[in-house]
Amino acid sequence: MELMTREELIKQIKEKKSFLCVGLDPDLSRIPVHLLELEDPIFEFNKQIIDATKDLCVAYKPNIAFYEALGVSGMMSLEKTLNYIPDSIFTIADAKRGDIGNTSKMYAKAFFENMNFHSITVAPYMGKDSVTPFLTYKNKWVILLILTSNEGAKDFQLIESNNKALYQYVLETSSGWSSPDNMMYVVGATRAESLHEIRQTVPEHFLLVPGVGNQGGSLAEVSKYGMNKDCGLLVNSSRGIIYASAEKNFAEMARKNASELQKKMQIELIRAHVI
Amino acid sequence: MELMTREELIKQIKEKKSFLCVGLDPDLSRIPVHLLELEDPIFEFNKQIIDATKDLCVAYKPNIAFYEALGVSGMMSLEKTLNYIPDSIFTIADAKRGDIGNTSKMYAKAFFENMNFHSITVAPYMGKDSVTPFLTYKNKWVILLILTSNEGAKDFQLIESNNKALYQYVLETSSGWSSPDNMMYVVGATRAESLHEIRQTVPEHFLLVPGVGNQGGSLAEVSKYGMNKDCGLLVNSSRGIIYASAEKNFAEMARKNASELQKKMQIELIRAHVI
Repeated sequence: MELMTREELIKQIKEKKSFLCVGLDPDLSRIPVHLLELEDPIFEFNKQIIDATKDLCVAYKPNIAFYEALGVSGMMSLEKTLNYIPDSIFTIADAKRGDIGNTSKMYAKAFFENMNFHSITVAPYMGKDSVTPFLTYKNKWVILLILTSNEGAKDFQLIESNNKALYQYVLETSSGWSSPDNMMYVVGATRAESLHEIRQTVPEHFLLVPGVGNQGGSLAEVSKYGMNKDCGLLVNSSRGIIYASAEKNFAEMARKNASELQKKMQIELIRAHVI
Repeated sequence: MELMTREELIKQIKEKKSFLCVGLDPDLSRIPVHLLELEDPIFEFNKQIIDATKDLCVAYKPNIAFYEALGVSGMMSLEKTLNYIPDSIFTIADAKRGDIGNTSKMYAKAFFENMNFHSITVAPYMGKDSVTPFLTYKNKWVILLILTSNEGAKDFQLIESNNKALYQYVLETSSGWSSPDNMMYVVGATRAESLHEIRQTVPEHFLLVPGVGNQGGSLAEVSKYGMNKDCGLLVNSSRGIIYASAEKNFAEMARKNASELQKKMQIELIRAHVI
């Protein structure tokens, strides 16, 4: 898979008129039963989802937990999936890793060298030296957790620290570790009201925004507060697309839902004068 | 592998006069070269380390990054390693996972069902609902990151929040999520001075303490401030034991270093009237 620079990503967004990221979270208990007879149901599911959505999205985000849960065979399905994704599409290992330096270096090796992902999601709790090993790879990206879409985000991310919310402190501190050319941030769509404030701190960075759809976030709100002149957003939908149907028409229905999102995204890109 | 209750763990500590955890972080660039000719050098290395140390330690902690870095073959070595560890020894998946509920559930499946680890290390940034899916397994353990041994711990864990350090806030909040019967905490040995304060908040919980040895922590200090009436400590050494020698005598030298630690631990256990 080729490298993916910021410029290339922006070009893809403008060409496809989309900032859609499709989450590949394949669950054997939810994929259509007719696939279960095949040798590798997980890869077959992903393959059909990719075929049905690759002209509508600019990123795929396999959620690594869903592959690890299947053991060695899951990791093999993941590798095949990654190889199947077209070179022009940004790939995100949604892994939420982060450990002491020599360990983060090993995770970087796993996801950037062996699997050749363009990017990985990283948890910030262990601080700078847990993140920098991922930043030493040229044209690979760290996507740092800032403000997540789940209920538990309020437990720690929203508590006040030095007169600001912890997530804001993490954002300010970490924005000095690198540049918008190899760092992005995760901001949940359910926290759209915070996007305005986040944009004051990091006007240039891309934000990966999960939580539109099933988790209740609004694409219009996210775009209003989060979009910048280059778009600066990757909005993820997982279950809303890949589980649009549990029948034989699952890929067709996934395309339908992805297409609806893409059309709405096109309107937002025009509204913000990105295209 | 059998279940591992708190009572059983304490019994093992008293019988072995040890609270040593051996970190299994096998790195192809550091293991003795004569092993590289074998079919599965990683498993062979671990096997010999386990044979040489199993009577001296009460826990093994494979660092998952080191296996993931080797792809599918690494995961196979990990499974073989886990099956080789005697049933009476506590196993820790040092994975530092944590994600939204449906994803943490998948990680729990991977490490508790497929691989049958007794415990997993979890990062707290995403809050309660990212941790609870791991707590629903009977007699399985969550080991939550609180205060880590690396330099980057100061970036966020030590900042003041609500008039206390963030790590203390995470500790207080999370101690209400479960009980000392299925929750432990990671506290780096390089932060021994904080152990006294941590013990005020969680007098009963076990603490997993990495950072003795290579990272500079002191066993005497850790024991002085962290030990409770049941011991309440698992002190980890990885590189100091497994890389004691890069020659053919690596297992013998690993045993020598583990034995030295065990003897010091025995003294601390006697001093604190645990045995």
